[in-house]
Formats: sequence, C-alpha cells, structure tokens
Amino acid sequence: MDIPDTPAIPAEALTGLLDGRWAHVRAEARARMAERGLPDTADLTTEDYRAVVLTELRELAHSGYPRIGFPPEHGGGGDPGGALTAFEMLGFGDLSVMVKAGVQWGLFGGAIEALGTQRHHDRYLRPLMDLEVAGCFAMTETGHGSDVQSLRTTATFDGDGFVVRTPDDSARKDYIGNAARDGRLAVVFAQLVVGDVSHGVHALVVPIRDEDGNPMPGVRIEDCGPKAGLNGVDNGRIWFDDVRVPRDALLDRYGRVDADGTYHSPIEGDGKRFFTMLGTLIRGRISVAGAAGSAAKKALAIAVRYGDTRRQFPHPDSGDEVVVLDYLAQQRKLLPALATTYALHFAQEELVSTLHDLPEDADRRELESRAAGLKAIGTWHTTRTVQVCREACGGAGYLMENQLPRLKADTDVFTTFEGDNTVLLQLVAKGLLTGYRQYIGERGMGRVIADQFVATVIERTAARSVIERLVNAVTPRDEETDLLDRGWHLKVFEDREKHVLDTLARRLRRAADPDADAFEVFNSAQDHVLRAARVHVDRIVLEAFVAALDRNPSPLLNRVCDLYVLANLEADLDWFLGHGRFTTARAKAVTGAVNALCRALRPHARTLVDAFAIPDALITAPIAHGDRQGTQSGATMTGSRSGEESRKAVAR
Amino acid sequence: MDIPDTPAIPAEALTGLLDGRWAHVRAEARARMAERGLPDTADLTTEDYRAVVLTELRELAHSGYPRIGFPPEHGGGGDPGGALTAFEMLGFGDLSVMVKAGVQWGLFGGAIEALGTQRHHDRYLRPLMDLEVAGCFAMTETGHGSDVQSLRTTATFDGDGFVVRTPDDSARKDYIGNAARDGRLAVVFAQLVVGDVSHGVHALVVPIRDEDGNPMPGVRIEDCGPKAGLNGVDNGRIWFDDVRVPRDALLDRYGRVDADGTYHSPIEGDGKRFFTMLGTLIRGRISVAGAAGSAAKKALAIAVRYGDTRRQFPHPDSGDEVVVLDYLAQQRKLLPALATTYALHFAQEELVSTLHDLPEDADRRELESRAAGLKAIGTWHTTRTVQVCREACGGAGYLMENQLPRLKADTDVFTTFEGDNTVLLQLVAKGLLTGYRQYIGERGMGRVIADQFVATVIERTAARSVIERLVNAVTPRDEETDLLDRGWHLKVFEDREKHVLDTLARRLRRAADPDADAFEVFNSAQDHVLRAARVHVDRIVLEAFVAALDRNPSPLLNRVCDLYVLANLEADLDWFLGHGRFTTARAKAVTGAVNALCRALRPHARTLVDAFAIPDALITAPIAHGDRQGTQSGATMTGSRSGEESRKAVAR
Repeated sequence: MDIPDTPAIPAEALTGLLDGRWAHVRAEARARMAERGLPDTADLTTEDYRAVVLTELRELAHSGYPRIGFPPEHGGGGDPGGALTAFEMLGFGDLSVMVKAGVQWGLFGGAIEALGTQRHHDRYLRPLMDLEVAGCFAMTETGHGSDVQSLRTTATFDGDGFVVRTPDDSARKDYIGNAARDGRLAVVFAQLVVGDVSHGVHALVVPIRDEDGNPMPGVRIEDCGPKAGLNGVDNGRIWFDDVRVPRDALLDRYGRVDADGTYHSPIEGDGKRFFTMLGTLIRGRISVAGAAGSAAKKALAIAVRYGDTRRQFPHPDSGDEVVVLDYLAQQRKLLPALATTYALHFAQEELVSTLHDLPEDADRRELESRAAGLKAIGTWHTTRTVQVCREACGGAGYLMENQLPRLKADTDVFTTFEGDNTVLLQLVAKGLLTGYRQYIGERGMGRVIADQFVATVIERTAARSVIERLVNAVTPRDEETDLLDRGWHLKVFEDREKHVLDTLARRLRRAADPDADAFEVFNSAQDHVLRAARVHVDRIVLEAFVAALDRNPSPLLNRVCDLYVLANLEADLDWFLGHGRFTTARAKAVTGAVNALCRALRPHARTLVDAFAIPDALITAPIAHGDRQGTQSGATMTGSRSGEESRKAVAR
Repeated sequence: MDIPDTPAIPAEALTGLLDGRWAHVRAEARARMAERGLPDTADLTTEDYRAVVLTELRELAHSGYPRIGFPPEHGGGGDPGGALTAFEMLGFGDLSVMVKAGVQWGLFGGAIEALGTQRHHDRYLRPLMDLEVAGCFAMTETGHGSDVQSLRTTATFDGDGFVVRTPDDSARKDYIGNAARDGRLAVVFAQLVVGDVSHGVHALVVPIRDEDGNPMPGVRIEDCGPKAGLNGVDNGRIWFDDVRVPRDALLDRYGRVDADGTYHSPIEGDGKRFFTMLGTLIRGRISVAGAAGSAAKKALAIAVRYGDTRRQFPHPDSGDEVVVLDYLAQQRKLLPALATTYALHFAQEELVSTLHDLPEDADRRELESRAAGLKAIGTWHTTRTVQVCREACGGAGYLMENQLPRLKADTDVFTTFEGDNTVLLQLVAKGLLTGYRQYIGERGMGRVIADQFVATVIERTAARSVIERLVNAVTPRDEETDLLDRGWHLKVFEDREKHVLDTLARRLRRAADPDADAFEVFNSAQDHVLRAARVHVDRIVLEAFVAALDRNPSPLLNRVCDLYVLANLEADLDWFLGHGRFTTARAKAVTGAVNALCRALRPHARTLVDAFAIPDALITAPIAHGDRQGTQSGATMTGSRSGEESRKAVAR
C-alpha cells in the first residue's frame, strides 16, 4: 500500500488544533511552567522532596490557578473545564505536584464542594483554594479499595455529633495523600450510623492535625513509606479511635441528621445515594486521564526526538549510519502509540467539554461511564507507551537524567488508583448492559437492528451528524472499501461494539436461569465484559477524533487518525477474523497499511511531538536535545599524566 | 470446555522437577541466601547502596561461589552450567548484587578467560575470582551500543605496546558497570590498529585506577548518575586519553601482535573474528535471561499469594467477600504469565545444559542464537509479568515494602542491555534465514517439505524422538484434534515457524533484484523478521517443556504446559486465523480453553509459586504473608487524648 505524501506543516499549526476550547488555559499553564521549570529533586530525601512539592503547591495557590474550577461566589473562576485542562497541563511537570494538587483541590476541595452545603462552602472553600488548609480525601481503607461501598469505618450519631471509629487495622484509611505530613483536615468516608440503623457511606470533615501539625486526639497517622514513584506526595494511613466531631461536620448535601437524630436524604436507597455521591467525584478520574495523556506526550517527545537523531548500523549502500527512527521496528514502537495519544487527546477534550456544559441536574450516567472508560484505556496506554519509549531509548532511557524512569515510576499507579482499571471497565460494561436491557425490554428480543442499537444503546457522543453522514456513505461490501475510508472505520468500530455487547447480553441472560450459578455465569464471562467496555471506549475515542477533524480539517491529522484506527484494528485482528468481519486478505492488508502509515508519518514524527508544545524547561533529558554526550550527572574523576594527586570534581 | 481436576501435590514435589540437573547448586544458593537475607537498602544514598552491594559481593567471593564456573587449573570449579544456575538463583535476591556479580565474574572474568591466553589467566583469574581486583567490561560506547562492530575507541600499536584513545565524546565508554567506583581494571574493546591497518575490534586489559582508587593517568571517569533501578551498581563513563599499555595487555586468543608489529589471528576476516569473540561472551545473555526468570517468579509469588488472600466485593449469594484470585480477570492476569514462566524455566535449564555439554570446538551458532532469542523473549516476559503483578496488587503493589516496585525498576533494563531485544531477535532471524538458504541451496526452490524443513532448518533442540512420536501421532485433521493434544501443540508451533520463515525468505529474495532497494526490502519486512524469531523461540520453549514432562511426568505440570500453549496460541490468534490455520470455531475454542485452564489451575496457584522455593527471607513483602495491615514502614504519629505532646516514633 502506498500512501501519498502529506505536506509538512509547522508544529504550531497543529498545536492550535490540539489546544482547542481551553487554549487560553493551556497557554497560561505553559508560560507559568516554562518560567517555573521543574523542581530539582534529583538528590532529595523523601522528606525534602515532599517539602519541595509543598512549595510548588504554594506557588500554584499563589498564582490563583486552583481557583479556576471553584464557584465564583467563593472567589473561584467557575470554569470546571478550565480546571480539568489545567490539571492535564500539570501532567507535563513533576507528577508529584500534579497528584498533590489533585488531592488538595480535586479530591478534598471537590468533595467539600460537591458533597457539602453552604455552611461547608463558606467555611472551607476559600482557605483550601489558597492552601491555608491542606486536606485529605480519606476514602480507601486497607481492606477496601475498589469496593468502597463496603468500607468499615463508622460515624455514629451520639445525640449531639458523630463519633468516628476505625474498628480494626483492615479498616484504617490507607494510601491517603496529604496524610503523612501536611493534611490538617480529612474528608472521611464512613458508614453513617444513627441508632441501630446504618445509612451507608457518607463523608465528614474531620480535623486530623492541630495548628502545630500534631495529630489530633484519637487520631493515629502512619507514613505509607517509600513508593515506586510520586514520592513527593505524603501518603499515609489514618486510624480514628472514637474521634468526636460536631453534627455539622457531616457533608450533608445527600444526607443529613437532625438534632433529634432523624435522618433525611433527597435520595431513596443507600446504594443509589452512594453512587450519586461517588458520581460527583468524577473529576478525579478525568484529571488522572488527562495527566496520563500529558505524561505519554512527554515520553513520546523524548523518544521521538532521540530516535530522530540517534544513528546505529551502517546503511548497506551508503555506509552512513541509519537514523534509528528510519527503521520500521522503531516506527512501530513509537508511531502507533503517538497516533493513539492524539486520539485520546481529542476524546479527553470532548469529555471535559461535555462535563463543563452539563446542566447541574442532568443525567450524568453516560458521562461517568465515559470518564471511567477513558481513564482505564488512557492510563493503560500511558503505562505501555512510557515503557516502549524507555526501551526505544536503550540504556540512555534507563538513566534518570533522561526523565523516562521517573515518568514510568510516577505514572504506574495511575492504572489502579482513582478506580482500578479492570473494575472501571466492568462498570462501563454494566452501564452498557443496562442500556441494552432497557432497549430490549422496550422492543422485545429478536434481531436487534444495528443502527437503532447504536442510536439508542451506545449513544454517539460526538458530532452525530458528521459521523452518520460518513457511515452512510460507505458501500456495503466491506472488502472493497478503501482501508483508509473514515466511514468504514466508524462502521467497523460500531459493528464491533454492537456485536460484542449483543453476544455478551445473550450470554449473561443465562444467569437468570433458576439452575444457574449467577456468579459463575458472570465470572466466566469476565474477559468478554472487559472487551465490551474496551471496544465501546475505542468507538468513543474514534468519534471524538473524527469530530475534531470535522471542526478543523488537517491532512496530517487525518493520517494520524488513520494510523490510530488501523493500529487498533490490527491489535484486534483475531476478533475481526474470528467473527468473519475480515477475510484473511483484508487482515494482511491492515498490517500492510499500518506499515505504510508508519512510513508516511515518519517524516512528520518530530512535528507531531513538537505540536504538544511542552515547554523546553520541562524536557530536561539530554537525549531529547541531540546531546549524545549526556550531561555531567555525577562525580567526574580525572587521572593526571603528571602524576599529581588526581582531582575529584563534582559537576553541577 | 471442562477440564478434569488435577490432584493437589505438595510444592516440594514440583520443586524437585524444577530444580533439575543443578539441584545441588540451587540448594546451596537457597541456603546461603536464606541465611544472608536481603541487604537492607531502604533508605540508603546511592553511595551507601553501592557500598552495601560491594560488601555482598565480597561475601559471595568469600563463599567461593564465583569459582564454580572457572577452570579447575586456576582454582575454579570447572562447572559452567553450575555457574549459570547460580546466577539465576541470584535473581531471587537484590538484583544490583546479581548485576554487579555478573559484571565482575561473568563479563570481566568471562572476557579474560575466553579472550585471553595462559598469561592472562595466570595473572588475573585467581585475583578476580576472589574480588581482589574488580574489573569492568568496557565495550559499549555512547555512540555505539547495539552496533559494537563500529566502536571508535582505538588501540594503536606503537612499536612496543598499545596506545588506547577515545577520539571524541561519542566514543567514550558508557554505562560501564564497576566503572564509577570500584573497578581497577577494564577489559577495553577497541579497534586494533597496527601501522595503517585496522584489524577490527579486540579487547585489552587496561588499568583504570591505581591502588588508592584514583584514576590512572590519561583515564577520565564519570558517574552515569542515578538510574531507574540497579542503583547499587556503579555504572560510569570512561575516556582514554592516549593511555599506554604493554603489548601483553592484548587479550590475544583470537589475534596477537608480535614485537615486530606482525598481526596474527587463527581466524581470517575481521568480521568473522569479531563474531567469534562476541560468541564467547554468550554467558552474559544466558545469565540475564536466568535472572529475569527468577525476578518473574518472585513477582508472581508475591502477587499470587496476595491474590489468594485478598478479598473484594461480596459474593452475590453468600455475601462473603470473594477472594480476588477467584475472579477470572485476576486469573487471566497471573496464570498464563505463571505458565509461561514455567515454560521459560525449562527452556533456560536446557540451554544451560547444552552450553555445559558443548565441546570446546563445536559449532556454537545454534547455541548463540538460542541464547539471544531466549534472552529477548524471557526479559520481555519479565517486564510484562512484573507489571501485571504490580497492577494485580493495586495500591499495595505500588509500595516499596511490597517489593514489586524495585523488581520492576531493576529488571526494566534487561530488555535492552546485553543486547537490545529487538536487535537480538533480528540476529536470531538472520541465523534462521542462513539455515534456510543453505537448505534451499542444496535442494533447489519449490515446495519445501515441512518435515524435512524442521529436521534440517529449524533443528529440534530437545528430546527429538519424543517430540517426533507425539507429532506423528496427531491426526491430520486439525479441527478434530483435542485442543489439549500435545502432539497437535507441537505440530502447530512447528507449522507456524515454518510458514513464517518460508514466507519471509521468499519476501526477502526480492532484495536480490537488481532494481531493488535492498535496505528498503529488509526494512519493510522488519515486523515479519521479528515474528519469525519469536515463533522460533516459542517452538524451542515448548519443546523444552515437553522434554521436561517426558523426563518427569506430572499431571499438574502437564496442565501448566497446556496453559502455556493455549495462551500462546490465543495471543497469536490473528495469525492462525489469518493464515487459515484455525476456523473461527477453533479460535473461539482456544479462548474458552484458556479460561477453562485458568479455572483448573486456580486451586494450584499457590503450589505453583511455592514450588519456586524462594527463601522466605527474600520475600519480605507484607502482602505476600497474609498481612493486610502492612508494616510500620515510616514515621508513626499518634495524637493523645490527654493532650500531652504527641509522640513521633520512627518504626523499624
């Protein structure tokens, strides 16, 4: 397959397309981060690293940045989309700073805003925005991480206030950011008990340290100790030994207790209330996905720039050494990952935009599901991409000075925090199945018609009219369609999702059999469940990319989208072949197209990473700057010929 | 698919099967490591960590362990297989110790032994075995890592000795273990120049530090600085500024220079000589593969033990929380990786045994190729496995105390050092193609008969007669064969290798066209080349597993082998479907079989990891010992109800 050349364009032109609706926020973040640079954390102890990160947070607070997303009536900017974009940009910098900022303003501040009421907002929002008070989001317990509904900390009404208790060590709060060192307050999630009745998980504001930084009476705090990465964040464990808080410590938007002990909630049912409360915390997942995308961009920027200058092995004809990015194997490592990073960028942008525009009282289920799915797919993509970038840089990629090791270590936990990816994908699939059952329930079983199905069950999230036009323009005979036909791409992704979901639903119906072991039916379909979620997210991502291309046509981005699609199809060829979607000839052609697209995009690789416009101050890796000599990163010892005492000089 | 239950057996019984020919070496290593435990490196600075690792090396030297592999006439044990097994066992401990031991005794000592002659052996072997002299293996340069033949350091004969010169910074020696701190000598690889003639790369022993640890005159040494992992190893960079060494510094087994400047070599041709010299260093790759296997075993032991006790989400019927390893998704993360780890173990054992038994003057090409291939496949497997283990342990897996972060960081470089995996697989494929061309050359093109092809081109490495019997017993109609039929497995793996190689060879013949751009032909087939190597290694691994089962039948191991095969087939379903090998029904059945095998092996998971018999002293992760409370890994701060000054206690 031959792909026509795409004209070169300046990286800045692409940056404009990538920056989108919150371009002003991105520009401000770039300027601020370029000026501030990366904190120098090379030889710090954990405590010193934490101190540096706290200083960075104070700088952020001072800049007013954290105010962007909070309500204007409390001094905020009232721009939630801008706040999420700003978090995404923090992903270009030190990720401990990003995570600690996320804990403070995203999780702690977000919980106060979303779960509290006027009283809490008045009291806490302004000081927390300005980091006058540092807080924790104390949800996870050692024994319960994914299954938060089963938390075992209790908050028992004692006639006047609440008594917070950690019943045993497995119910201690664990991995809590800001706990080990800086947090004064914690939003503590606990089973709310009034009399003999438990009303399920609620959140309360509990002081954990006094003004001098000492733990409050009844509070025990332990340091989680060193982690794989993110060591600038002070994660800790907290026990509550019958700690009393007043009645108004309860964040009572979704449940309150009167002075006489009567419980009120606008939402019936503990489960439904719990998920409503969790849903308000969606921003954490979106932030992680955004920062993960930034980390992938940074890793790719380093690896592509290195691959674009590094040479190895002589060319058989000229004898000149070949630039390693000219090798197909190197292109295959980096370019599909780069194309997927672009695709996820547009999906993320659209998700942020949807959240920003969603009316307060709208149904948030689709949004929550999309956030969960993109977080899972995006963070796994980052883990894989950073790994492949490290390997693509060989031994140089293993040196801390070249930044990839820290990117790898810091982002690793993204796949399991703010919702374990495997659990999140199950949530996504559950949502899809609910939609499916409603659809079937309304229409009766039988042959589900694909178009209706797509319209009603798997709901297009972006640029419906454009996508429908493209899909409808495809000839029905797949085999003859151009492999680069966008309508065909959309149709193939849709068809895959429909089929996977359809067969999954039929399979799970067995669980309704009176003789069936329901757990066993669901458990043995778990791989099918995960696939359903994955292909659903893939379709959403593609639609977002197509919508972006429709807003801003770009021949180069068009090719990038082609590579995203073809690499995705190639990774799933077993499914397409196994379900009679592709002939063997078509499957071979897909692989050929991926190779051809790698070749076609190779001349633009540098432009594509430069378009992320990551400030130079944040890419300190010598290999990303054509420096094959490296820096003097350690002690230099020189022997002198004249025999005088050799000199030891510590460079830097 | 239902798989009959396999009776439970004690882990010790499996350990016996795994330990194999060098069981005595393994037993000794376990006893020594259990007694010694892991060095406590938690809060060390880099310099202190290096000092601790050096102490561990001295302990090893003191124990006599490093002597195992060296020649008896110099006080060694004359047991190269034992030495490689001992390295593999070191992989259960601190990997900085393993790598530094590998540098000292494997690379530095190995080069002296293999490339030097009597004089060098007499002078260096005993002191280096005892660590009286620490040495470096100074091959890689900043500008040349994979393409070592193009090194640019020179050693020029000056009428009396050699002058070693680093022409510029890109020719400095880089990433050299033992260089930054402890090395006194270096085996330096340089272009040997006599008069106007370069004879290609040779190795010389060059002193780099004096007795006081100061760099020798003309030698400049720089620290590589912090790395992602392995920070107990002192990697450095070395420049030689016209450093003179005597004529006998040349390791002259394959090339010597007389006093009058006449060059002699038993091998004609610089290229052939170079590859002969490299081939003697095969043990480094085997050691890395072995240690990578040990690291994967340790990660799996931690994750499986945790998964076997950790509970999350209530069972829909009983309400009891489900043990996470009962979930199919968790089984799918860990059990195929565990099965592959078993398979690679037997392949490694067989490779070590082959090397051990190979006569001095035998053709080593198959062995070199196998070592390269197993190193690549094995280290990638370890990178993936440690990652999946980390994720399978969630937030707990991110804490240093649970060992997975360090395993991940330390093993990461395995995929690119001692030969970049991608480059190694290309070497493997090149060897296969050479064999193929010889075969075609002798018989003429046309239809290559599979059996002959296997016999002569892809040479069975293990238990030929058993494998042939199994293969011949398979009915010709694939579709009807039991998916768990071992003969069918062997046949399918063979057929895949033959087809991939066959089509690759035909494709590359185009390069011989006078009009063809040879580089372009090869480059555009690079993914095909890598696949050829991979499926070749897969076949070798399976044959080794089958041979092990033939020596020691075990129903449980038989199931493990089934899962290895089926998971391998599943990962490659796109190929089997795309090449008409499997019908879509067969492909679905493969996925069903993987699920069924996971279910069947689930009850044995703990036994399978316990069988590795990793000393408890080396598995310090609290989560591997049913401790869901964690340890007190950091500062504990308790608030006192009585208001007295809160106490800060540093645990441990």
